[in-house]
Parts: sequence; structure tokens; C-alpha cells
Amino acid sequence: MITSLRLAAPACLLALSTAVPAAPPETASVAWSITEGLTTEVGQRIAGSEREAVARDWAVTRLKALGFQNVRIEPFTLRGFVRGEETARLTMPYPHALAITQLGHSVATPAGGIEAELVYFQTLDALKAAPAGSLKGKIAFINHAMKASQDGSGYGPFGDVRRAGPRIAAQKGALAAVIRSAGTDMHRNPHTGGTSFADTAPIPAGAVSLLDAELIARVASRGKPMRIALKLTGHPQDNLPSGNVLAELPGRDPSLAPILIACHLDSWDLGTGAIDDAAGCGIITAGALRAQQGGKRLRTIRVLWAGSEEIGVFGGAAYGEAHKGEPHALAMESDFGADRVWALRTSFAKSNPALHDRLVAALAPLGIVFKDEPVEGGADIGAIVAARKLPVIDLVQDGTRYFDLHHTPDDMLDMIDPVQLEQNVDAWSRVLAIVAEEKADLASGS
Amino acid sequence: MITSLRLAAPACLLALSTAVPAAPPETASVAWSITEGLTTEVGQRIAGSEREAVARDWAVTRLKALGFQNVRIEPFTLRGFVRGEETARLTMPYPHALAITQLGHSVATPAGGIEAELVYFQTLDALKAAPAGSLKGKIAFINHAMKASQDGSGYGPFGDVRRAGPRIAAQKGALAAVIRSAGTDMHRNPHTGGTSFADTAPIPAGAVSLLDAELIARVASRGKPMRIALKLTGHPQDNLPSGNVLAELPGRDPSLAPILIACHLDSWDLGTGAIDDAAGCGIITAGALRAQQGGKRLRTIRVLWAGSEEIGVFGGAAYGEAHKGEPHALAMESDFGADRVWALRTSFAKSNPALHDRLVAALAPLGIVFKDEPVEGGADIGAIVAARKLPVIDLVQDGTRYFDLHHTPDDMLDMIDPVQLEQNVDAWSRVLAIVAEEKADLASGS
Repeated sequence: MITSLRLAAPACLLALSTAVPAAPPETASVAWSITEGLTTEVGQRIAGSEREAVARDWAVTRLKALGFQNVRIEPFTLRGFVRGEETARLTMPYPHALAITQLGHSVATPAGGIEAELVYFQTLDALKAAPAGSLKGKIAFINHAMKASQDGSGYGPFGDVRRAGPRIAAQKGALAAVIRSAGTDMHRNPHTGGTSFADTAPIPAGAVSLLDAELIARVASRGKPMRIALKLTGHPQDNLPSGNVLAELPGRDPSLAPILIACHLDSWDLGTGAIDDAAGCGIITAGALRAQQGGKRLRTIRVLWAGSEEIGVFGGAAYGEAHKGEPHALAMESDFGADRVWALRTSFAKSNPALHDRLVAALAPLGIVFKDEPVEGGADIGAIVAARKLPVIDLVQDGTRYFDLHHTPDDMLDMIDPVQLEQNVDAWSRVLAIVAEEKADLASGS
Repeated sequence: MITSLRLAAPACLLALSTAVPAAPPETASVAWSITEGLTTEVGQRIAGSEREAVARDWAVTRLKALGFQNVRIEPFTLRGFVRGEETARLTMPYPHALAITQLGHSVATPAGGIEAELVYFQTLDALKAAPAGSLKGKIAFINHAMKASQDGSGYGPFGDVRRAGPRIAAQKGALAAVIRSAGTDMHRNPHTGGTSFADTAPIPAGAVSLLDAELIARVASRGKPMRIALKLTGHPQDNLPSGNVLAELPGRDPSLAPILIACHLDSWDLGTGAIDDAAGCGIITAGALRAQQGGKRLRTIRVLWAGSEEIGVFGGAAYGEAHKGEPHALAMESDFGADRVWALRTSFAKSNPALHDRLVAALAPLGIVFKDEPVEGGADIGAIVAARKLPVIDLVQDGTRYFDLHHTPDDMLDMIDPVQLEQNVDAWSRVLAIVAEEKADLASGS
């Protein structure tokens, strides 16, 4: 199953797109059209950039054309990250160019770069155990052993190598930190992402490809000194402009609280953000449209294409702040790629078992199982869910290959399997058709 | 089958190498040890470089330690290629960074790079059909539709996009040429390789990743003008030093012509040349040693680790020139990765059917089938085979994933499946044990 999923997208799209590059898949859907359009007409759209602004305008035009109402941009600013030059190479025991990318919120190396001893740590715990001051004048390398899984659960613990590793290295005096990318592929792709220094003075930090990390581990195992030359010129930048795009499919009863569904419009900049998260915007938007085929639903469905998720969930925070005074019925998000939905979580098992059972029954024909776990929601709905204690429904996607592609140069359209994308739309439309017809106060029992 | 092969190496090696980075696979063999050592202790070893010189010394030390005799370096010089800076980005219709690598034998862009209109050609034939002079002041982009196959047969016709595309573009006035990499993967990896301008004045030429080529095709299909900024500073260079490494397992009868078996020691420089061709050196060397377990064979087995194959088969040519006056019994080469041998071709079906039948019977237990086709030999044995009309045995490897990795940054150790590598050694040792015991003049009937 894993292997077939992994190859489904490239295999089917290769056949299709090399023969007739302009042709959409046979199931030319709204979800595909949005995903293809954003990644082909806009490209990368890193938080706070000119390209993200282009993406907002593109989104407004597209959502209006699809029949959405109240389409608008809600602007905000953020402290973002501007990428620069990024090169790294081992200089000892021999020259080897590393595939590297700088991590968001880290700082530039001195002009001309730095060259220093590379100290190998097999795990984040090994780094934590290093004596205070022991990395003075050195560069830390942090390895890890994240594995692919259907639920992507390795990203929690092993993602800490990226989220906390550079800060811990800085606290021990390191000049810079280089990590094994927080991913699961075996390619020469670095995975970017944000790191955090909290109150520690930031240092330059980058992530190398997993293949380079394997090489570094083998060289380290031979016990010879390693040195690395590192040049990273990216840097944080304040007051970058961004914004959320909102749009609505008005319901028959405007007095009822709306259903909020979210994705994020920004992407990291190494690829074109197909799985993260153009596909999510395609899925929720197509799902909403299909849910009201045959006529308006009782409740309004509000679509949030959030800005600047990647570098600190600024769009989600801005939405929560701006709309915390308004009633919402329910919130859902799609931000875990475009592979099939395999499980369902809801807030309604106890508060509204009849609704819960209808949801489970509606998804059962798709092979989607109920997962009796707390709901998770998503980054962009996090603030409004917390502010209003909203119920949530999670349509849980297969994450087996998600961290092969996440934040890498490979996150491009050809990684999307149109068949699985459509299964997502099917699942979303079934759920939205039910919850948008629910008259009962959904939030009351959550 | 294709999917399981594709994933076998990363899956098994991920589990193994992240847990204990220094550990060799359980079947720690000579073939693995050579492949791991060359890629970990020497790294990339492009033709004519200091790293290739290090690789020759490494090879001499290793072959002596393994018990080979007459271990020696036969030096030569070549016109090679020195890589420089290489960047490319679409500037219209919007900025998009392309994963690019410069092609060998092409020349540098003017200082500061160039920026020009990009003219899209769906195929090499479409480029050929362009009017004379129509590319003046422009940059050609050439797409193609190469597919993966067990026998790698797409590389012949579609590889011409790389081998001839830049020259044809130059003849029509192009400032530079950019091609879809001659490969089959869907990753953000460019595939390097040599091109040829013959008598045409060379232009800068690069290959972009297949994912970038797909994006360019989609953008082109929208009919908007495209422009590209290109900076390639690599250039050809004369009189680079290289050399072949030769070593022998002397036979019981020195008067009999030796069996020649070859691989190449140099690699392209984007990866560390694991499948191309450290594994080949591991396979033939381990196969030779295993073939004489229990005592010397009748004939000498001569191992050729050829230098500078990639940029023009200079090592093979030098060997042919230096040794064309010496009798050889037979030649074989391993230079198609490390996946399993699935077929056999021999020169002996008519000239020595008893020998032929013994070979077929010896390989049948491994599931290797006889392929009734002309033998192909290999680049490095090409000159000596032609000069002396030598018989050849081909142990044909599964090439399904070869052109996913060929000449890319991904050509690193973790792509090698140790189980399939060992199957190669098994096949080689069975063949060598037979032919090195053959007293009859092998070359006579070919």
C-alpha cells in the first residue's frame, strides 16, 4: 500500500503531462484546477512576499469566479524570513557539497561565510547532554531517525531537532547549527521550516538533505575530524505585508453561525507548495461547492485561505483576533497534503451522537474509519477554536509520504495524485452537506 | 515489481543506517565495502580532478589489500570539464528558481550571466524543425518524454536531447540551451552528463529537473512569453590528469590470454557515484575474488577500474591503445547500477555452444534468462573489444530505476540495495569461474 501510494502520483502524471503538458487530469475538478493554477500561475508564495500578494489577488479572482460571496482580503503584517544565498560544504576530511537550506527565524552567517569544526550528534538528546560551552567556536550537526508513518506522528518528536536544536546548540556556544532535515525521504532535498530561539541569541541554522546526513554520519563514524564551510545570507525581516482571503457560500438562514473551513495560501519557497497547501485550498473549496449542489445549505460556509501560516501561523492568529467576537458553528482545516482521507475524528460523539453517527455513516462508503481520539483541528483554525471553544471535525489524511515532500523543492504539482485529491473532495462534501444542514447549536455541547 | 525495486534500497538502508551509521549491511561483502568506501572516503571523483587522483590511490591500496597482483596506474590526460556556479530562474511570467546543472563540454555564460526569451520545444524533432536563425538572441528549452524501462532503452533516443540538443540549438542561433534532464524520476534533481558540439561553436547548456520541466511545459501551454536568467560558469579544460587502475588475479597458466573485466572509477560530481559506478567496481572485483575461492583459476583475471569514462570514455580509449597488441580472451563490464542481473547475452551461442550452455545453466538458478540479442559490452571495454574483436558476455542489470538516479545528486550509497548488489556478485562469480577455467581459445570463434 505504501509503495503504491508513493508512486501513484508521479506514475500517472508522468504519462499524462509529458505527452500533453497542458492537459488537466480527466477528472478536471475545481480542486485540481485550484491546485494547478496556484502552483503554475503563482508559484512559490512565501509569507510576506510579493508572490503571496499575487496569490491573494489570484484567490479573490478565482473565488469570485466560482460563485463565492463576500470575497475579501483581511490584511496584517508579520515578522517573516527573507531567503538569501545558501551553500555548505564539508572541507574536511574531503570536499563535499551539501544540499542545504536555511531555517526560518535563523540569522545570516558573517559576510563571506564561516568555516569551523563540525561536531556530530546522533540525536537531539546527545546534543542536550553536551557540556556547557563545549560548542564554542564550533558548528553542531544534529542527526535523528524520523520514520514515515500513516499519521505522520514522527514529526512531533523528531521535528524538535529543527524547532529546538539550533537554540540548544546556541546555548552551548555553537557558531551555527546544521540539522538532518525533519523528513523521511531519501533524496538530495533539504527540508526548510521555521526554528525558534526564544530568548537565546539566534545563530545561523540550516537543514541538509537526508542523503547528506547519512554521509555525514558515515564519515563521523570513521572518527576523523570534520570541518564545514557555511554561507547563509537569509535573515528575519519585520513588518512584511500579508493577509487572509475570506469568502462565503451564504446559507438560507443568515442568523445561524457559519461553518468555518480553512487552508493556507502561503507556501515555503523551495517548491511551489502543491501539497502544502494549494491542495488543501482546492479540497475545501471544491468540497464546499459540491456540498451545496442542488441549492443553498441552511448555514453559511465560510472559506478561509489563510496567509503566512508557515512562518508562525500569523494568518490564523489574525483571523482569531478579528473574529473572536462572532459566533461560529464549527471549524475544519485541510493542511496535510492531498492523499486520501482514511479516518474521521469529531467533537460530537457525546454532545450530538445523532450528528456524529450520520457523519460516520456518510464516510463509511469511502472506507473512512472513526478514530476515537481528541480532535486536532489545524494551525489556521487554532486561534478561533480556542477563543470560541469551537467543535471540530478532522478528516485525517494519509501522511505516509507527506514528510517525504514537506517543505522540500519536490513540493510541486506532479506530486499530487488526482484520484486521491478527488477522494478528499468527496469526503469533505459529504461532511459539509451534513453539518451545514444542522439546525442545532453545534457549539453548545462541545 | 517496479515499485518494490524502487523502494527496496532506501527502505532497508534507512532502517539500518540511521540506527547505527557505521554499520555495514549484514552481508558485509567486498562489493559493499568497495562501494561504501569509495563513496564515503573519496566522494565525488569527476574525471581529471584531484578527487579522481585520490580515488586511484585508494583503489591501488584496496586492490593490493584484497590480494590482487600487478596493481598499477596507467596515466593519461584528457580534455575535461570544470564545474562552476550554476543558477537559472524564470523571470517571466514570474520568478521561479530552476534546479539546473551544466552539461559537460558546454561553455560558460558571459560574466554576470544572460537573460533572454525562452523558446519552448516539446521534442527534439520540434527543435530540428525550427527555421534557421529563428533562435537568434534566444534560449531554447527542449522537452522530451523518456520513460523508465527494465532495459533502459529510452536513454538512446531521449538521451539525444542532451547529446545533440544544444548543438542543434546553437546551429539555429541560440544563445544557450536548457533541456529537460535525460532521466525518468520526478524529483527536483537535474541530471548532468556530456553534450557535444562537434564543429559547431559551443554555447552554454544546462539540464533542469524533470519537475521544473513539467512546470515550464505547463507555463508554456498558457501561451505567455517566458524569459530565463542563466548563469553557468563551468568550462572545458585541457590536459587534465587521469589514469586507469589495473590489477590481476594471476591464473595457473600465464601463457593463456587473460579475461578482462571493467568498471569505471570516475563519477559525475553531483552525487558520489554510487550506482555510477562505484558499485560496478565492487561487483566485478568481488566477483573475481569469489570466482577463485578454492584456488587459482586457469586464466588470469584482469580488473580494469577505468578513469574518466563520464566525459568521453578516455580511460577505455587509453586502455585500448596501450593494450591493443596483447591477446585478451574475453571482456565484460559492469556499468549499469547495482540492481539485479535479470538477463545474459553471450558471444558464444554459435562459436562455443558448450560454453554458452554452461553459462546459461549456471545462471538459471538465479532466475537469469538468456537474451538472444547481440552483445553490447560497455564503454570502457569498447576500444579493446573493437581492436581485438573480443567476445563479450553481458550480465544485464535491471535498469528500471537507473535513470531516476543516473548523473543526479541522488547517486549516493543509500540508493544501493545490498541484496541486489550481492546477486550481481553471485552472477559474476559464476560466469568468471567458468570462463577463467576455459582452455579453448575463446576469441577464435567470435
